[in-house]
Amino acid sequence: MFVPGLIERKRDGGELTAGEWRDLMIGYHEGQVPDYQMSALLMAAFFRGLSAEETSALLDGMMASGIGLKFGDRSRAVVDKHSTGGVGDKVSLVLAPVVASLSVLVPMMSGRGLGHTGGTLDKLESIPGFRTDLSIDQVQAQLERIGCAMFGQTPEIAPVDRRLYALRDVTATVESIPLIAASIMSKKLAEGLTGLVLDVKQGSGAFITASSLDLARTMMALGEARGCPTVALLTAMDRPLGRACGNALETEEAIMALRGEGPQDLHDVTLALGVEMLLLAGETDRARAAERLEAGIRSGRAAETFQQIIEAQGGDPRCVDDPALLPQAAAVEVYYARAAGTILEVEPRTIGRAVVQMGGGRQRVEDAVDPTVGFVITARPGQTVHTSEPLASIFARDGAGIELGRQALDRAIKIGEGSAAPLPLVAARVSAKGVEKLA
Amino acid sequence: MFVPGLIERKRDGGELTAGEWRDLMIGYHEGQVPDYQMSALLMAAFFRGLSAEETSALLDGMMASGIGLKFGDRSRAVVDKHSTGGVGDKVSLVLAPVVASLSVLVPMMSGRGLGHTGGTLDKLESIPGFRTDLSIDQVQAQLERIGCAMFGQTPEIAPVDRRLYALRDVTATVESIPLIAASIMSKKLAEGLTGLVLDVKQGSGAFITASSLDLARTMMALGEARGCPTVALLTAMDRPLGRACGNALETEEAIMALRGEGPQDLHDVTLALGVEMLLLAGETDRARAAERLEAGIRSGRAAETFQQIIEAQGGDPRCVDDPALLPQAAAVEVYYARAAGTILEVEPRTIGRAVVQMGGGRQRVEDAVDPTVGFVITARPGQTVHTSEPLASIFARDGAGIELGRQALDRAIKIGEGSAAPLPLVAARVSAKGVEKLA
Repeated sequence: MFVPGLIERKRDGGELTAGEWRDLMIGYHEGQVPDYQMSALLMAAFFRGLSAEETSALLDGMMASGIGLKFGDRSRAVVDKHSTGGVGDKVSLVLAPVVASLSVLVPMMSGRGLGHTGGTLDKLESIPGFRTDLSIDQVQAQLERIGCAMFGQTPEIAPVDRRLYALRDVTATVESIPLIAASIMSKKLAEGLTGLVLDVKQGSGAFITASSLDLARTMMALGEARGCPTVALLTAMDRPLGRACGNALETEEAIMALRGEGPQDLHDVTLALGVEMLLLAGETDRARAAERLEAGIRSGRAAETFQQIIEAQGGDPRCVDDPALLPQAAAVEVYYARAAGTILEVEPRTIGRAVVQMGGGRQRVEDAVDPTVGFVITARPGQTVHTSEPLASIFARDGAGIELGRQALDRAIKIGEGSAAPLPLVAARVSAKGVEKLA
Repeated sequence: MFVPGLIERKRDGGELTAGEWRDLMIGYHEGQVPDYQMSALLMAAFFRGLSAEETSALLDGMMASGIGLKFGDRSRAVVDKHSTGGVGDKVSLVLAPVVASLSVLVPMMSGRGLGHTGGTLDKLESIPGFRTDLSIDQVQAQLERIGCAMFGQTPEIAPVDRRLYALRDVTATVESIPLIAASIMSKKLAEGLTGLVLDVKQGSGAFITASSLDLARTMMALGEARGCPTVALLTAMDRPLGRACGNALETEEAIMALRGEGPQDLHDVTLALGVEMLLLAGETDRARAAERLEAGIRSGRAAETFQQIIEAQGGDPRCVDDPALLPQAAAVEVYYARAAGTILEVEPRTIGRAVVQMGGGRQRVEDAVDPTVGFVITARPGQTVHTSEPLASIFARDGAGIELGRQALDRAIKIGEGSAAPLPLVAARVSAKGVEKLA
């Protein structure tokens, strides 16, 4: 294998064969292909794209290097949800306990913050003591006992994806549909699921600002072709989801949602995804699925399941009853409307980047994350505001962080004349049967 | 500096500022920017190009990390020549001694063979004992004593370019005009020249098959903007230059040219470049410059200067009088025309690749080079030949090498009906005054 020749072919618009993708992935795994060649290849792939055959071959190559797991006792449904990531997207923290409380096994394998979007693991780790580095055996045992484990990708699972994901993060090669699709599916298919629900974000705060439908279709086809029924919902990321952006702040908001006291949009997206998970787990009636989820929240069983998960993973379960136990920012300041008018936009990418700059995300893989910083933004697109009306709170380490946050909100929150046109919260459903518009 | 953001901006077609390029280069030099980020950035630059301002900023950043030298005693002109590289291009070995024999200081810093093109250092090292790994002090002393030193890039000179060059070679990011231009100029400007002549090749045997004019203009502008008057000639590389291709064979041919007994095209290109060097060194009359060069050859002073250089650098100076002292190939075979007709083409890239395959070049950086192998090709495009007329000699290590050489000549030398249309030997002159067509 002459790697520069393969990079050159992709660079010049050609295709690599299934065997070449496999050799590249195995060579990368075993250290013969160095990071600097892989990142050049990924950038060439970013510009040239991959054909459906190449995407499938890439996925196979990535999976060939890792083990496939079988979670659960095989008599119960094993269903996971994956989100393509967005700003303020704390759905996993709500959804996993709710669905698990309804007797579905949920091996919720999640990632860390990437670029301007947060990561479920970082959010969970804002709970004092919470550990996400579970072994496969620990995950298995916890699934059998509680029905849910929330953990990071272990070294055994899709190890090539692990390294590629980190590499893409620091080389601006994240936003490529085939690379995203193969990465997500290599992890999810390794879990041995009986069904998979994808939350594909659209809007400026999502990784994919266009082509969300393409991404949903690509992943759905990869899953179905490998015996894993897969459904995707296209949801809005033209504004942050919920109000909180930043790790501990989002965990607190997720806890509120688990108690039925969270923001409406977070509740609605959680419910839509939960319905799909229950349907894939054997529930036959859509309305009944929704009612079961609502009841799980109302009854407190969902919050209780989250407490069990926290306790099992070393965290302080009292956080669910008393979110003030979560780490608190040193500096807090209210942000007021600069002008009167209609809120035309709350631009999530700017918000997400500001959280990273304020210390709440990673600029490099090895960076530590400050869980306390971020925003709680009450302003919503379409809302009419008057000058000096409070629109958000800024949480930072110090005055400099507050200033960064203020500048970001100045840019992100656009107030003017006219009306806002936010995307529908849940726009479409993509499954093997086709695309169904929901709004 | 948030490197992924810079890569992303370039990837998406934006420009980086001068400060950003500088920080990137210094960060790369000091190890904060890893190879994998640099290779992704280079690939993005390959696709998106660099503006004139960015190319200039890249160059400044590369130079900021290395030392700038001041060769010579500052009362004399210091002029160098650089070629973008081609097959059979042994001009440096002739030109440097000739020009140095006319009281111009020539710090001829050269490279090794890369891909299908040869390298001046490899050619020089075919002279028994010749050393090219001179220190800066040795170069300085030799320049003062003899007027010329022929040496490889030292670790102090353009260290970032050294690493970038190696990285580009293995990540398919070589063929980019701004990257090539900045790389060449970072080395040449570090020499503290009072003038620079560029030999930009065009035709299939050159690295740049299109856009030679762009490359010439880009490099010229970079030199002029930094106080180094720079002139470029566009010369033909649609066939090998001269007859010899291969290290010792080319050295022998260069020695013949130094004595006035070399092939006409080699003589003409050497003279054209030499005239430009003398004009940059203060000579005011173009015809007189040519006459001085001719006289330098005729009088034997040029050959004598080469002998002094060889002696100073540890080589056997008797090679100039007796080229048979150069290493000789174990196997030699004459190659005959396969058919009668006109020679339509002698394709240099095929020839250059064959020399590498026969052991005379590198497939990997660490490969050793066999100086003896190669070709002496007398066939020229446009020549009418009869069947079995001798067209070339093949020099190899063994019968397998001879066979490789024969097959390469079968592919490279095209005989047929019609007429050949070779490129003009010296097509254009690019200077601060503009582009002057010469043919």
